[in-house]
Amino acid sequence: MTYCLGILVRTGLVMMTDSRTNAGVDDISIFRKLHCYEEDHDRFIAVATSGNLSVTQTALWYAGEEGETDTIAEQPSIFRVARCIGRALNRAREEVREALDRDHIHSDSAMLVGGRVGGEPVKLFEVYSTGNVLECRPEDPFLQIGQFTYGRPILDRALDYETSLIQAVKIGLISFDNTMRSNLAVGLPIDIVTLANRPGSRPLHHRIEDDDPYFDALSRAWSEGVSRAIASIEHPPFIPEDGGETSARAD
Amino acid sequence: MTYCLGILVRTGLVMMTDSRTNAGVDDISIFRKLHCYEEDHDRFIAVATSGNLSVTQTALWYAGEEGETDTIAEQPSIFRVARCIGRALNRAREEVREALDRDHIHSDSAMLVGGRVGGEPVKLFEVYSTGNVLECRPEDPFLQIGQFTYGRPILDRALDYETSLIQAVKIGLISFDNTMRSNLAVGLPIDIVTLANRPGSRPLHHRIEDDDPYFDALSRAWSEGVSRAIASIEHPPFIPEDGGETSARAD
Repeated sequence: MTYCLGILVRTGLVMMTDSRTNAGVDDISIFRKLHCYEEDHDRFIAVATSGNLSVTQTALWYAGEEGETDTIAEQPSIFRVARCIGRALNRAREEVREALDRDHIHSDSAMLVGGRVGGEPVKLFEVYSTGNVLECRPEDPFLQIGQFTYGRPILDRALDYETSLIQAVKIGLISFDNTMRSNLAVGLPIDIVTLANRPGSRPLHHRIEDDDPYFDALSRAWSEGVSRAIASIEHPPFIPEDGGETSARAD
Repeated sequence: MTYCLGILVRTGLVMMTDSRTNAGVDDISIFRKLHCYEEDHDRFIAVATSGNLSVTQTALWYAGEEGETDTIAEQPSIFRVARCIGRALNRAREEVREALDRDHIHSDSAMLVGGRVGGEPVKLFEVYSTGNVLECRPEDPFLQIGQFTYGRPILDRALDYETSLIQAVKIGLISFDNTMRSNLAVGLPIDIVTLANRPGSRPLHHRIEDDDPYFDALSRAWSEGVSRAIASIEHPPFIPEDGGETSARAD
């Protein structure tokens, strides 16, 4: 499995991916799922991939290779980049879909595409394997692909468009920590890239490896904060003050 | 969809279910999914149901009706009750499986069965529609059926076998609040029953309706606690102190 998260707040973009791939529990490896392109002062494109790895790899070859006629290098906006990657993903999938279907192997895949081309504001899109794209909007300032469910409640609860970029990174890491606790198929390292929403800003890249002291401290601080948050909630009025425990011990 | 949660801590049992059923988003109704039986001083059995409602209803008729030869009334332990309900569920499903398959309607269902028969400790089981049962164990003191993913991270993080019964109710309600925020197909009312783990203890029943003041306060207190918990986490050392925001605003 895979978990990829893109967050777009007023002040910028955060993209995060885990790095675990598996073809069954006895065939697990580490693979980079966050790909960054064209890092000069007015072009930055980050792509996060989930689903069939051979399909997403092929799509990125098609969208990037010299000699191809439809590549991201020619695109005048990040929206056009997302559409171009969508066409490449659809092409890569359709080429193998029938053969994979016959072997009962999923060819479905999805990507997140974020960044900026020229002076435009930073944007974020989800790209489906049918080729169509969906833009991330301020009302719901995040997109997830892959194993998204366990990591979603904290985003629904804590994130909005006015959240600072640095808080967004913390919330994103909590979302990953929650996912990795509940689903062993999502695992470290976590690749992160952030891009402030201003012309000429430079991306910041970071990889969180096993035993990363900051991530360990974040996980501990979050667990302690959760315990304090639960303790701060009043007892349910419909349960006796002792919850039946005192009598249970007295018996 | 449905979300049912059973928690078994040292001091007792908590079972909770939502009450929303839907056959498509334009066909939603409220239906009780928590069924309690045989409430005298040495027998208490609670059953939470998910999946195809006609199948689970039929199963409970088979397991409870006078004239049937294999009913929960005759069972000498809660384990035997769970097995009896498993046989009834399997029978109810197999009767309609082929017909439902032809109409592409899922017949799959699952149940949680908790309680106590005689002086035995309180126990909790998951019952599959194949008829087999799984016991909840102290290492992982909860079982979920239905739409379990959104509500799981808080359980993995905050619950263990030594958690008090009253804390377990709070944690369970947070799990429901998280699920209902992320999945509209799970909704109020929430039915709750608790049973202290001592011979002769009486079950406590409660239903949380729309606009329940305690549940609203719990949801607010949890959101505030989450904000405080996030704020208490140190900033990531790999991002500049201003997260790129100051420069973004200065541009």
